[in-house]
Amino acid sequence: MKKIFTVFAFLLLAIVNSSSAANMAADTPLYKNKKATVSQRVDDLLPRMTLKEKIQQLQNRASGGANDIENIFKGESYGCTHEMNRSAAECADMYQKLQTYMLTKTRLGIPILTAAEGIEGILQNGCTLFPQELAQGSTFNPALITRMTQAAGAEANVIGIHQILSPVLDIARELRWGRVEETFGEDPYLIAQMGIGFINGYQKYNITCTPKHFMAHGSPAGGLNCANVSGGERELRSLYMYPFKRVITETNPLAVMSCYSSYDGIAMSGSHYYMTDILRDELGFKGYVYSDWGSVDRLQTFHRAVATQEDAAKMALIAGIDLDIDNAYETLERMVKSGKLDIKYIDLAVRRVLTVKFTLGLFDNPYGDPKKVDKIVHSAANVAMSKEVADESAILVKNSNNILPLNLSKYKSIAVVGPNSNETIFGDYAWTERNPKEGTTLLQGLKEVVGDKITLRNVEGCDWWSKNTADIQNAVKAVEASDLAIVAIGTRSTFLGRSPKYSTSGEGFDLSSLELPGAQEELLKAIKATGKPMIVVFIAGKPLAMPWVKDNADAVVVQWYGGEKQGRALADILTGAVNPSGKLNVSFPRSTGNTPTYYNHFVTDREEPFDSPGTPEDPKMHYIFDKPEPVWNFGYGLSYTSFKYVSCTLKDTVFSATGGTVKVEVEVENTGTRDGKEVVQLYVRDKFSSVATPVQQLKAFNKVLIKAGKREKVTLEIPISELGLYNDKMQYVVEPGEFEIQIGGASDNIVFNKTIVVK
Amino acid sequence: MKKIFTVFAFLLLAIVNSSSAANMAADTPLYKNKKATVSQRVDDLLPRMTLKEKIQQLQNRASGGANDIENIFKGESYGCTHEMNRSAAECADMYQKLQTYMLTKTRLGIPILTAAEGIEGILQNGCTLFPQELAQGSTFNPALITRMTQAAGAEANVIGIHQILSPVLDIARELRWGRVEETFGEDPYLIAQMGIGFINGYQKYNITCTPKHFMAHGSPAGGLNCANVSGGERELRSLYMYPFKRVITETNPLAVMSCYSSYDGIAMSGSHYYMTDILRDELGFKGYVYSDWGSVDRLQTFHRAVATQEDAAKMALIAGIDLDIDNAYETLERMVKSGKLDIKYIDLAVRRVLTVKFTLGLFDNPYGDPKKVDKIVHSAANVAMSKEVADESAILVKNSNNILPLNLSKYKSIAVVGPNSNETIFGDYAWTERNPKEGTTLLQGLKEVVGDKITLRNVEGCDWWSKNTADIQNAVKAVEASDLAIVAIGTRSTFLGRSPKYSTSGEGFDLSSLELPGAQEELLKAIKATGKPMIVVFIAGKPLAMPWVKDNADAVVVQWYGGEKQGRALADILTGAVNPSGKLNVSFPRSTGNTPTYYNHFVTDREEPFDSPGTPEDPKMHYIFDKPEPVWNFGYGLSYTSFKYVSCTLKDTVFSATGGTVKVEVEVENTGTRDGKEVVQLYVRDKFSSVATPVQQLKAFNKVLIKAGKREKVTLEIPISELGLYNDKMQYVVEPGEFEIQIGGASDNIVFNKTIVVK
Repeated sequence: MKKIFTVFAFLLLAIVNSSSAANMAADTPLYKNKKATVSQRVDDLLPRMTLKEKIQQLQNRASGGANDIENIFKGESYGCTHEMNRSAAECADMYQKLQTYMLTKTRLGIPILTAAEGIEGILQNGCTLFPQELAQGSTFNPALITRMTQAAGAEANVIGIHQILSPVLDIARELRWGRVEETFGEDPYLIAQMGIGFINGYQKYNITCTPKHFMAHGSPAGGLNCANVSGGERELRSLYMYPFKRVITETNPLAVMSCYSSYDGIAMSGSHYYMTDILRDELGFKGYVYSDWGSVDRLQTFHRAVATQEDAAKMALIAGIDLDIDNAYETLERMVKSGKLDIKYIDLAVRRVLTVKFTLGLFDNPYGDPKKVDKIVHSAANVAMSKEVADESAILVKNSNNILPLNLSKYKSIAVVGPNSNETIFGDYAWTERNPKEGTTLLQGLKEVVGDKITLRNVEGCDWWSKNTADIQNAVKAVEASDLAIVAIGTRSTFLGRSPKYSTSGEGFDLSSLELPGAQEELLKAIKATGKPMIVVFIAGKPLAMPWVKDNADAVVVQWYGGEKQGRALADILTGAVNPSGKLNVSFPRSTGNTPTYYNHFVTDREEPFDSPGTPEDPKMHYIFDKPEPVWNFGYGLSYTSFKYVSCTLKDTVFSATGGTVKVEVEVENTGTRDGKEVVQLYVRDKFSSVATPVQQLKAFNKVLIKAGKREKVTLEIPISELGLYNDKMQYVVEPGEFEIQIGGASDNIVFNKTIVVK
Repeated sequence: MKKIFTVFAFLLLAIVNSSSAANMAADTPLYKNKKATVSQRVDDLLPRMTLKEKIQQLQNRASGGANDIENIFKGESYGCTHEMNRSAAECADMYQKLQTYMLTKTRLGIPILTAAEGIEGILQNGCTLFPQELAQGSTFNPALITRMTQAAGAEANVIGIHQILSPVLDIARELRWGRVEETFGEDPYLIAQMGIGFINGYQKYNITCTPKHFMAHGSPAGGLNCANVSGGERELRSLYMYPFKRVITETNPLAVMSCYSSYDGIAMSGSHYYMTDILRDELGFKGYVYSDWGSVDRLQTFHRAVATQEDAAKMALIAGIDLDIDNAYETLERMVKSGKLDIKYIDLAVRRVLTVKFTLGLFDNPYGDPKKVDKIVHSAANVAMSKEVADESAILVKNSNNILPLNLSKYKSIAVVGPNSNETIFGDYAWTERNPKEGTTLLQGLKEVVGDKITLRNVEGCDWWSKNTADIQNAVKAVEASDLAIVAIGTRSTFLGRSPKYSTSGEGFDLSSLELPGAQEELLKAIKATGKPMIVVFIAGKPLAMPWVKDNADAVVVQWYGGEKQGRALADILTGAVNPSGKLNVSFPRSTGNTPTYYNHFVTDREEPFDSPGTPEDPKMHYIFDKPEPVWNFGYGLSYTSFKYVSCTLKDTVFSATGGTVKVEVEVENTGTRDGKEVVQLYVRDKFSSVATPVQQLKAFNKVLIKAGKREKVTLEIPISELGLYNDKMQYVVEPGEFEIQIGGASDNIVFNKTIVVK
């Protein structure tokens, strides 16, 4: 029945189309003819535009409100628009009117790109709140994230949104940085896989994503958000560029966002080398570059690369920033008229913007579907989708004596304490601040699960920020009166930097210490002293230094901001309705100074041949008082069942450097008593390489459901081209020699270590 | 009388010389004729050598002992030798015999280079122990360091040492790194100035220095000594290369030591680009490259750039490492014979080694002067020289209510406590471990100064390393019984990595935390609680995070390992015999995570335009709980007198980018009641630059003695060429525009801010 309807709809559309074509007057310009190619249409439109009209295509104009359209746009079309403080329905209605206005009330009828943040669902009020990107990464399940962004894309689609300002492809190597929560984690391969999965979902609704921040924004000096990133060309290409290269090649996004930081002293948004030579000529990006907020103006005001706003605009435009989200491009018209700027740069950028608009079909149909907003936005299915991602993203990192899942018949009362015990905490690009009304808290989730069977005592004990310890004794009393303590600690983030008083994570909120903020560790120690079993739930936007928690908690569950069903997902995991299957996508450091802790370090960086980590009792060099290894390592995560890696078979072990694919078949057995998902991981180590390569690099993974007592065969593949490096001439080459193929359930739990030879 | 003797000696020498020339047989080879040029002599000698003899010139052979020469050398000459565990007299005697052996018992009579560590005096037992390099840097007095190394050079000269394996030109940006103490500090200009001063002294005795570690060794990942350094080509050139460029251009050293680390993934010691293209072709280095210990073998065993020791040797030799201090070059002969290695690489390296030997005059006179060892080594004058450097290097960073210098008539008893109160602590390249017998401790120094007038109570209170707090109460009792507490805290280093149990600084002893090690802060807090005045003496090899000390001590003196008179220098400063004049050459961080703290950061790195540092009471972004500024900043240091910057005059304010010199005349008045030395500092800021440049860069300084109540005029000069940057094409250019010329007594105490224009 559904299929028949689809066919019918298609026929109807075909009739309408041919009817339009037939009705098209002889003087209808070619650019309005949908049968023409995109380039024909652009070629036709561009010469019709005035200089002012062209430059407006390189600018953003905030949409303001449905009633203000005439005042704001004055009969002129702009490159793009955005809206952040309205409900989905209001926004859909406004965009409907705005596009109608663009097509009918502007001289050339050029539609406008409607952009929205969409990292954890659409940033319009009332849209489904999905888990933050860091939580998406810990699922190790790109197909799941495709389904998630498809759900979010459906919401965007009815609102009339064409461009999503996500995903973040930055790399979480600098843990002090506030935006760690916006990344997929510390590994470039994982980021590429998740980024591709993310984009695929939105693309099903013909929405373009905007991978960002191009490039290397994630390792600022001191962790300070806007600071320069220190690094070389090889590091840039091997590490920071990798996810962009993969995503551009495999998803062909129509937009990329530049970053506001500099790399080795070069401001990215002012660099033709980075924004054109690499991004377009080398990586093959075909879309338009959207400036990050402030990144054009900041060439003058922040980087001080030029002395005037005009020069900033000129520098950015020539570099390849096609659209400036702020005001600097208002100066372009004056510069062209005065001969300071060649119009060819304007034309090039306008061509790119128009190409995107034609490619997305906006000239033919730029509309959403406001009538469907109620049905699609925040639908039960989408909320369930959010919960599913939350379920798969939580990471069980400790579970002494299998205390989890909780044996509910054993406990009469549970103390649910800690600053994050009765809060919903969303990531910094959610449309709402933390707000229990917008989602399920841990306490609420537990209440839903245990009903009246178990008494739940809730005391915060301390806040997540201050050193105030006054409430700790109340938490201790609640724990003493109960059979078990669940302590929810961590960080909080806020809506795009608003309410800074409450943020310990998120954009602009960088930490100089990775210890638990405020009095949280004191709270934990006081609860530990009661002698009651202590389950720690770490709800945060980044790893913190918690060796004490590892040593002292009976169990630890990590949740990276799990969306609106976050508390219910945690409750289902704690009580066993959901079997945890997330894996750590960022390593946990032992201390602030014991960083970096990313697993994919160079051989030289933690394997000094004449040294080994010491202890205070047996002192050695590097470090004197500690060892550089993390508390919990990349790829690590427990399940309520157990997995045995049974066998590992390589189809071939000798390859040519010019091509081929390593195929590894791994058999894994669920040796426990309940079904569970395991992330089978494959790491590569180049045994000898002319330039430094990591001790391990994730190069394939597969998350697989294995029924209790059953075995599954997982096939992992690595193209030989993935084994390359940028040599001393900065050429990407696969060097002949031996490579280790490491297979296991975590970067530090390698079960099989095979060798292949590349000739 | 002395002069007449000198003339007589000269005449005698001339007669001997001409007599030798006259006696030179017709078949005496040209290379033995001192009238021939160096290149003529090398050209003559090289073809006479067998392959084996050539390769031996590329190797080090430990000298072993005077009686073992025949056994060790077997009639063969080597490139160089070294000796570390003998007294100066024994060593002098042995080198005398060894060179005689080389000239008379080897086939070609090639003398051997005798090398020694000489960073803080000569590393032969009994030599004068001068302050560590970090202390040399804090004097801001290159001429003083020239006098110091001239004194050390006199000791080397009589022993017969021709090559000093110093100075370290690495940059102290990564404070966790154990070798911070071996640097001149965090600023490339200061390092260049001090390095030149250092080399000039040794060169007066025709001893070559060996600037190291070429290059960028000082910022390893995580502070772990041997780790890769992450950075770009621009950072390399602007920062790490700068001191080498200056030192090579201005002192023409005959040796450079490579480093064992990698930069952006490229192992320095295996890189032709770094060791030849940059070092020789670009910087104009004319001498030979001496491998750091292990750096050739480690191309295989550590960097894993090649799979065999042979390949490591080949890679290093071709890169430009002329002499391998270890064993890898033993494989060269086999490779040449088998056709795997072109002999041209051997010849090139041998030519360089021989050129150095001829240039230093070793073929004509390789001898020391053993008979003078007793008179020259550890002479009273040299010990006084060591004390003078210690006097000028200590930095007074706090002095509340002018509690210092101590009014000795006011105190009947002083508690001298803390783990470093009765220890001498030498740097990691001294010939002895910390050992009170080898120098004056703080307690001893105070006893020498106050005699019986004041009772000194000494209790350590805690050690410098462990968490043991048992002794703190004894220290508290001593303080309670006294009128004042002097608390000596800090780090300890040991002789080249031996006795690791006692090291918290030095090569290989890296810290994951910059907090005071062990129980030292608890000791301080317990003493503070007594209410007695508390003077903190921080004796250490690096800055640590001491905001509490800044807030709570009445006065703080910093000493970076002050050589054998360290305690007396401190006592003289505390009691006023010496007026402190050192300035901080490394900034003190607020916490471990509040790094980097170097003053010469980029504009973007601590000046986010929409943010400012917050406090817990008034939270803001970047960082949330702290601010990125250091506790004490580069260039800072107090005196017992006060200085007023009276005027600042620029001769010209408009310059051409192609040349010229900025000349600044600064008038400074000593407004206090005692004579004192001030370091007048000039920093430059490029107001707008196409690539990122620091907010401040030290570009001139001058330490000047100003009598109480008097004024002195100081002229500071900056060649316009010093205002350049490496642009986006990696060309070094001076960009037209405005530059701030900042004049003051510290990087954060700028009194005059002038502007010059470059056209």
